[in-house]
Amino acid sequence: MVGPFGDVTAATALRSVLDDPRRAGEPLSITVNYAGPIAEGPFTVEVRPVRTNRSTQHWIVTLSQDDAVTTTATVICGSRRPTWSETELEPPAVPAPEAVALAQPPEFPVWMRNYEMRFVEGGGPLAGEPEERPHSVTTLWVRDTPARPLDHLAVTALSDVFIPRVMVRFGRLVPAGTVTLTVYFHADAATLAAHGDAHVLATARAQHFGAGFFDQTAGLWTTDGVPLTTTHQLVYFKH
Amino acid sequence: MVGPFGDVTAATALRSVLDDPRRAGEPLSITVNYAGPIAEGPFTVEVRPVRTNRSTQHWIVTLSQDDAVTTTATVICGSRRPTWSETELEPPAVPAPEAVALAQPPEFPVWMRNYEMRFVEGGGPLAGEPEERPHSVTTLWVRDTPARPLDHLAVTALSDVFIPRVMVRFGRLVPAGTVTLTVYFHADAATLAAHGDAHVLATARAQHFGAGFFDQTAGLWTTDGVPLTTTHQLVYFKH
Repeated sequence: MVGPFGDVTAATALRSVLDDPRRAGEPLSITVNYAGPIAEGPFTVEVRPVRTNRSTQHWIVTLSQDDAVTTTATVICGSRRPTWSETELEPPAVPAPEAVALAQPPEFPVWMRNYEMRFVEGGGPLAGEPEERPHSVTTLWVRDTPARPLDHLAVTALSDVFIPRVMVRFGRLVPAGTVTLTVYFHADAATLAAHGDAHVLATARAQHFGAGFFDQTAGLWTTDGVPLTTTHQLVYFKH
Repeated sequence: MVGPFGDVTAATALRSVLDDPRRAGEPLSITVNYAGPIAEGPFTVEVRPVRTNRSTQHWIVTLSQDDAVTTTATVICGSRRPTWSETELEPPAVPAPEAVALAQPPEFPVWMRNYEMRFVEGGGPLAGEPEERPHSVTTLWVRDTPARPLDHLAVTALSDVFIPRVMVRFGRLVPAGTVTLTVYFHADAATLAAHGDAHVLATARAQHFGAGFFDQTAGLWTTDGVPLTTTHQLVYFKH
């Protein structure tokens, strides 16, 4: 509502780090704080590598427009290496992407036209489900449109692909906007490249709503059930 | 392992914002990034309010020692106001605090002596459970020792009270350390003050381990099942 471009803003903050010649390693996590709206027009991204260790590198990012900070972010890069591995979280059991109806993107918000969405559950008012629901779970198959191979920028944007949970609860538009978003990356660049432009399974739910804010916890998965990101956000709402 | 004081470091970063006369509103969230170890001795905290809106205020915090950044943080403050409220997440079903045995704090790490801990599940090697486990869940009743009333600083520190999940899985010490921690505050100052020094229910689990890192998702609750924080972290490990 304040600025419906959280996905591309987060990806832009990450890209500014990834494009910097001082960057060491792959992204491990990003936290993006949405301080104010961004208008169409030029903006400035300032990136500062504040500490580089043997295995991790810490960055502070600020995005400004007309001398006002619109966005802050912290990014951690690092080297992944082989260790014991296990996934405790289960992806939801869902039909194959091809078996789920393709949602028609709404007129508004326009960002939804950048994704092909197939809602398994909890599409909410923008996907033609104007009903109240007893919980806020949304699960969908999603990919970029036009198609492009997956990378850390794409999974960052996809981690913010969910409409505000409060709208899913009430089945209608409710003023809401992400205040802060955190993404933990579980897949390296090679895994993402191998995934190509296949569908991504995305699932999200709120944990607590109250006093004007709610949180959301979410995850992205490959078609084979490999976790790509786990991601969390705090969202402002008015209801 | 790098520096076993994530809890007090996070609380110190938040306190630097809360003590600042420019601060507007109560804390809504904090993300703390552990860039390097902190040694005993003086350190400098720099706080910068980068944007103040009508309902939210965004801060960047850096903690430095000997001219090296050891910690970065972003803090968001804001005003809470009455809205529709609901908790979708369920706290685990547990016995009352008095019915759970008080754990003897280990010799090391010393920070554990700052908390009274009563483990319902998943105490791990530091609580005398040197067994492998099929999942990483830890649930405990916890409070500060010596006792002090709850506030946003206390729930920030308590949000980092869990030993690394990989140790719970393997039932023994494994090199590990938090890389980044995020806390979403669901309770206002009045709710925390009313809670006083009663026990807090704390529960955590990992979602994915691999390539040297795992995530943890956790929550703190009052004895009445009211959510205090939901909190997430990414942790480095070697195994």
